[in-house]
Amino acid sequence: MYVNTIWVVITAAMVLFMEGGFSLLESGLVRTKNAVNVTMKIFVDLTVGALSFWLIGFGLMFGKDLFGIIGTNLFGSPEHIHLSIELPSAAYVLFQMGFAVACISIVSGAVAERMNFKAYVLTAILICIILYPITGHWIWNSEGWLEKLGMKDFAGSATIHAVGGFAAFAMAKLLGPRMGRFNSDGSANVFAPSNIPLASAGAFILWFGWFAFNAGSTLDAANKALPSIALNTMLAGASGGAVALFITMKKFGKSDPSMTINGVLSGLVAITAGCAYVSQWSAVIIGAVAGLIVIYATLFVDYLKVDDPVGAVAVHGFNGVFGTVAVGLFDKSQGLFTTGHASLLGIQLLGAVVVILWGLIGGTFIAKVCDKTVGLRVSAREEKEGLDMSHHGIPAYNELERFTDIPTSLYNFEETTGIMVAPTNGEKAKDII
Amino acid sequence: MYVNTIWVVITAAMVLFMEGGFSLLESGLVRTKNAVNVTMKIFVDLTVGALSFWLIGFGLMFGKDLFGIIGTNLFGSPEHIHLSIELPSAAYVLFQMGFAVACISIVSGAVAERMNFKAYVLTAILICIILYPITGHWIWNSEGWLEKLGMKDFAGSATIHAVGGFAAFAMAKLLGPRMGRFNSDGSANVFAPSNIPLASAGAFILWFGWFAFNAGSTLDAANKALPSIALNTMLAGASGGAVALFITMKKFGKSDPSMTINGVLSGLVAITAGCAYVSQWSAVIIGAVAGLIVIYATLFVDYLKVDDPVGAVAVHGFNGVFGTVAVGLFDKSQGLFTTGHASLLGIQLLGAVVVILWGLIGGTFIAKVCDKTVGLRVSAREEKEGLDMSHHGIPAYNELERFTDIPTSLYNFEETTGIMVAPTNGEKAKDII
Amino acid sequence: MYVNTIWVVITAAMVLFMEGGFSLLESGLVRTKNAVNVTMKIFVDLTVGALSFWLIGFGLMFGKDLFGIIGTNLFGSPEHIHLSIELPSAAYVLFQMGFAVACISIVSGAVAERMNFKAYVLTAILICIILYPITGHWIWNSEGWLEKLGMKDFAGSATIHAVGGFAAFAMAKLLGPRMGRFNSDGSANVFAPSNIPLASAGAFILWFGWFAFNAGSTLDAANKALPSIALNTMLAGASGGAVALFITMKKFGKSDPSMTINGVLSGLVAITAGCAYVSQWSAVIIGAVAGLIVIYATLFVDYLKVDDPVGAVAVHGFNGVFGTVAVGLFDKSQGLFTTGHASLLGIQLLGAVVVILWGLIGGTFIAKVCDKTVGLRVSAREEKEGLDMSHHGIPAYNELERFTDIPTSLYNFEETTGIMVAPTNGEKAKDII
Repeated sequence: MYVNTIWVVITAAMVLFMEGGFSLLESGLVRTKNAVNVTMKIFVDLTVGALSFWLIGFGLMFGKDLFGIIGTNLFGSPEHIHLSIELPSAAYVLFQMGFAVACISIVSGAVAERMNFKAYVLTAILICIILYPITGHWIWNSEGWLEKLGMKDFAGSATIHAVGGFAAFAMAKLLGPRMGRFNSDGSANVFAPSNIPLASAGAFILWFGWFAFNAGSTLDAANKALPSIALNTMLAGASGGAVALFITMKKFGKSDPSMTINGVLSGLVAITAGCAYVSQWSAVIIGAVAGLIVIYATLFVDYLKVDDPVGAVAVHGFNGVFGTVAVGLFDKSQGLFTTGHASLLGIQLLGAVVVILWGLIGGTFIAKVCDKTVGLRVSAREEKEGLDMSHHGIPAYNELERFTDIPTSLYNFEETTGIMVAPTNGEKAKDII
Repeated sequence: MYVNTIWVVITAAMVLFMEGGFSLLESGLVRTKNAVNVTMKIFVDLTVGALSFWLIGFGLMFGKDLFGIIGTNLFGSPEHIHLSIELPSAAYVLFQMGFAVACISIVSGAVAERMNFKAYVLTAILICIILYPITGHWIWNSEGWLEKLGMKDFAGSATIHAVGGFAAFAMAKLLGPRMGRFNSDGSANVFAPSNIPLASAGAFILWFGWFAFNAGSTLDAANKALPSIALNTMLAGASGGAVALFITMKKFGKSDPSMTINGVLSGLVAITAGCAYVSQWSAVIIGAVAGLIVIYATLFVDYLKVDDPVGAVAVHGFNGVFGTVAVGLFDKSQGLFTTGHASLLGIQLLGAVVVILWGLIGGTFIAKVCDKTVGLRVSAREEKEGLDMSHHGIPAYNELERFTDIPTSLYNFEETTGIMVAPTNGEKAKDII
Repeated sequence: MYVNTIWVVITAAMVLFMEGGFSLLESGLVRTKNAVNVTMKIFVDLTVGALSFWLIGFGLMFGKDLFGIIGTNLFGSPEHIHLSIELPSAAYVLFQMGFAVACISIVSGAVAERMNFKAYVLTAILICIILYPITGHWIWNSEGWLEKLGMKDFAGSATIHAVGGFAAFAMAKLLGPRMGRFNSDGSANVFAPSNIPLASAGAFILWFGWFAFNAGSTLDAANKALPSIALNTMLAGASGGAVALFITMKKFGKSDPSMTINGVLSGLVAITAGCAYVSQWSAVIIGAVAGLIVIYATLFVDYLKVDDPVGAVAVHGFNGVFGTVAVGLFDKSQGLFTTGHASLLGIQLLGAVVVILWGLIGGTFIAKVCDKTVGLRVSAREEKEGLDMSHHGIPAYNELERFTDIPTSLYNFEETTGIMVAPTNGEKAKDII
C-alpha cells in the first residue's frame, strides 16, 4: 500500500507542476503586455481554484451518488472518502486537485488578453465547484451514469480536456475577439507570441507532467498497464509533434513553433483517454491524427471568428473529443478497428457529445454569471494598455532599464497612440536609479 | 528498505531542483543588471556550499553529540553515519545536502544587488559549516538540546527557514540598502522586478520541490503521515497565495504578482514545521495567516529601513517563526487550540526565540568576517553598473542585438549618467556581427 | 517488480525532461536571432528522433546480436524484448528512448546558428538509427564486443556523451564556423549568450534529470549502489562547477556564467560512466578534473578553429572520454589508483578510442549525407538574418512591442546593414495593434 502512496504523491506533485507549464506556455504565447496577467491566472487556479475544489467540488464529484448525477457528501472533508483501492485518501485528494486545477488552466489560455481579472477569479471557482465535478461525477464516480454505461476515459480526454476545451470555446465566443484580431473584410491577424523559448519551456514541463497525469491515474503502482501507459504517452506526444512539424514545413514553408508545440500537446491530450487500453502502434496513430486535427481545428476556430490566443480549443477541446472517440476505435478488447465491435464506439460517441454540450452550456453559464456580476471583459483602454499594467500595475519585463536609464515601470501609457512613453520629468526616474 | 531508498533519492533530487526555483525567482525579482549575479550565487550554493556541508557541516550537525551542542565526527565521510531508520546513508546525505543548500539560498535573495561576490562565496561556506549545522544539531540531532526538550520542527520552518531568514535580515542590515532604495524623507522606492514570468516559473519549481521537502522528510516511505503531509503542503501554499492575492486586490486595487508569489511561499514555509502534525483545516488556516503575515512583515522590514530585494526575511524569517509557533497551537496531540495544553507551545516559543537570535548573531558574524576579509559590499560604481557586468562581465539579456546591430556586450557603462552607451567605434561591433 | 516499474517510469520522465533543459540552455547560450531554432531542434529530437529510435534504433542496439556488432530484430516492436531483470519491457523502452534523444541533443548545440533545419531533421534520424545504436550495441548489449571485453560505462559517458560530443565536433568542423567567429588574424570573437537566466534554468533542469539519468540506469530499485550513484552524481557536479568557477575568477578576474554552467555539466558527464563504481571522494576528484578539462578543452576547440557555440564538444566529448578513462583509474575493485591493476584501464582506453573514432566517422558521414541531399548549411543571408526568421518565421522575443507600437514580427531584415527595421508603412502595424 505504501508504494501506492509514494507513487501517487510523486505523480500528484508532477501534475500540479504542470501549472508551471501552463503559465510559461501562455506567458510565452500571448503578447508581452498580458504576460503577467496569464501567469497570475495560473496562480488563481492553484490557490482559489484548488481550495474551491477541495471544499466543494470534490464532494460533488466523488461524494455519495444521487441518481447517477451528483455527489452529496464529503464537502469540506474530502479525506473521509472510502476508496476501493489501497491508497490513503489524502494522496487521492491531492491527485484529484491537480486534475481539477488543470481543467481551469485549459480555459485560462482561451480567454487571455481581454478578460476582467475578477471575472477570472469567479470563473476559476465556478469551474471547480460546478463545471468540472458534474461531468466528472458522471464519468469517474463508480455510480455515475456514463460510467455505468461503460464509457472509458482513463485519464481524462473527455472529463478534463474536452469539457475544459469547449467551455473555453463558449467563453471565448462570449468574450469576443481581441481588438484588431479580425479585420472587417473577414481576414484574421495573427499576433506574434511574445516569448517562444518561454512557451517551449512550458511545453516541456507539461510533457514531463503528462507522464504522471496518465500513468499516475492508475493510482495503483502494481497496475500491469502502467509502463505501457507511460510509453503510449511518449509515442503519441512525439507523433503529434512530428506531424504538426512536417505539415507546417510543407504547408507554410517554415516549421512553426506554436503549431509544433500544440501538435505535441494534442497528441498528449488525445492519448489521455486511451493510454491504458491501446497498443503502441495505436498510440502512434492517435498522436499523428491529433497533430493533423490541431492544425485544421485552429483554422476552423479562426473561421468561426472565435479568438483563442493559445489554441486551447483546438488542442484540448477538439483533441479531447477525438481521444475519447479513439478509444472506441482502438481499444484492444472492444475497439471497432481492433475487434470489429461498435458498441464501445457508440458509448464513446455519446460521451463525447455529452461533454461537448456540457462544456458549451457550462462555459456560457459561467460567462453570463461573470458578465452580470463583476463584468466579463476589460475596457478598451485597459485592453490597449495591456492587462499587466491595468490589473497588476507592473510590466512583465523591465529589461530596458539598462539602456534607457528610466525604469519601465514609470513609463506612462498614452491612449491615443497606444505607446508607452517615458515620463517627461526625467528627474524623478533618476532619483530612483 | 529499497523503497525508502528510491523515495529519498527522488525527493532529494526534487529538493535540489528547488535551487533552480530560487535562481529563477531571484533573477526575476531583482533588476536586470543583477540577474546574472543572483543566478551565479545559486551556483555557488549548489557547488561550494554543498561541498562545504558534505565535508564539514554534516558532521557538526549529525555527528556524535557533545553536550547537546555540537557533532564531533563524520567530517569528510558523512556516509559513515548510522541511521536508526532503514535507509542507506548515501541517500540520507544527499537529502540533507539539499536542505543545507536551501538555507543558503534563502540568504542570497536578501543580500542581492550589492554584495561582493567573493563575500558571497565566503558566506555560503560559513552558512554550511557553522550557521545551519549548529541549530540543526540542536533541533534535529537526536541528542540535540532542543530536540530533547521536545521541540517539533518536522521539515524545518525553524531549522532552515527561520535561521536563514533572520541571518538574511542581519546581513541585509549590515550591508545597507541599495542606492536609491530609501529617500531622505524616509519614504521608500520600489524597484520593479525585471522579469515576472521568470520569477513565477521559479515559484512553481519551488512549490513542486516543496512536496519533496516536506513529504520526503519522512525518510520512511511507509510513514502513515506521508500523504497528509503532501496534502497539507498543498493546502497551506494555496491558502497563503489566495489571502495575499485578495489582500493586494483589496488594499492596492491591483493584484500584485510578487506578493502573491510570496504569499504562496509563506504558506509553504509556515506549514513546513507542522505538516506532519496538523489537520487539513489547520493547514488551511496556517497558510492563510502566513499570507497575511508576509504583507505586513514586508512593510515592517521596509519600515526598519532594511532592504530585502526579494522579501526573503518576510517569507522565510517571519513565517518560519510563525510556522514553528503554529505547531504549538495546532498540533493534533499537543496543540493549545486542539487540546488546551500549552506546554508544547512554550517549547516552540523557546525554539523560535533561539533560532531568531542564532540567525541574527550568525548573520552578523558572517557579515563581519566578510567585511574584514574580502570586503562585504561592492563599490558604488559597481552597484550602478550592475553586478552582472562588474563581477561576471556579461549582461543577463542580449536581446537587443537584433535591433541595434551592436552586441550589448560591447556597450560601455557611463558612470556619470548610469546609462549603457554604444561603442563610438561602431566598426568594431560590425566586425563581430 | 512493480517497484522497479515506477522507479524506471519516473526516472525516464525525468530523463526526457532533460530535453527541456537542453532547450533552455542552448536558447540562452546562442544569439537571440537563433533562439527559436535551437528550441525547435529539441522538439525534433523528442518527436522525429524519438520515433526513429523506437522504430529502428532500438532493435539495432538491443536486438538479437550478430557478431557482437549489431542487433537484428525488434524493429517496430521494441516491447518484445526479453529482459534479464524484473522490469516490464515498456518501461525499459521508454527509458532508452530518453537516452537516445539525449545523444542527439548533445549534437544540436555544437551545430547551432548555421545549420539548415532540414539537415538537422535528417541528422536527428541518422543519429537515432545509426550513430548511437551501433556503439550502443557494442557497449551495452550483453553480446556486444566491448561489453564482452569488460568495458564499464554505467550510464553512458562513452556510449552517449563521448559519441555525441565527437560527432558534434566532426559536424561543427564540416559546417564551418559562424560568420565573424574567427578573424583573419587567427583570433576569435566571442558572441555573448543571449539569455543567461534561461541558460541557467536549463542547467538546473539538466542537473535534476541527471540524478535519474545515472541512478535510473540501475533499472533495479533494489540495486545496492543506487543511493551512492545519486550522491556521486551530486558531488561530481558540485566539484566540477566549483573548480570552473574558481578558475574563471582567478584567470579572468570575473566568474564566468557559461563556464561555471559547463563546469557543472562536465562534472556530471564525467561521473556518468563510473557513478556506480567509485567512492565519494573519487567522485569529487573526477568532477574537479572535469571542471578543469572543460576550460582548456574549450580553448583547444577554439584553437582548432572549430566553432561550437555552446561548448558541447568540451563538455560531452572531452569529459565523456575522461569519464570513461576515469573508471579505469578509480573503480573500487579494478581501478589503477585503487588496486594497482591496469587491465581495466586498458579496456577503458580502448573503448575511449573506439567511441572517439566512431563519433568522428559517424558525424562526418552524417554531415556528408546532409550536404549531398538537403544541404548542410544555411545561406549567408539566412545566417545574417538569423534562423528564427528565415526558418521559422518568428523571432524569439517580441517584447519591444510595448515601446515601439510595432509588432517586431513585422520588422524587416535589411541585408546590407544586418538590422531589423520597422515597416515604412506604419499604418499596417497600427491596424494590427
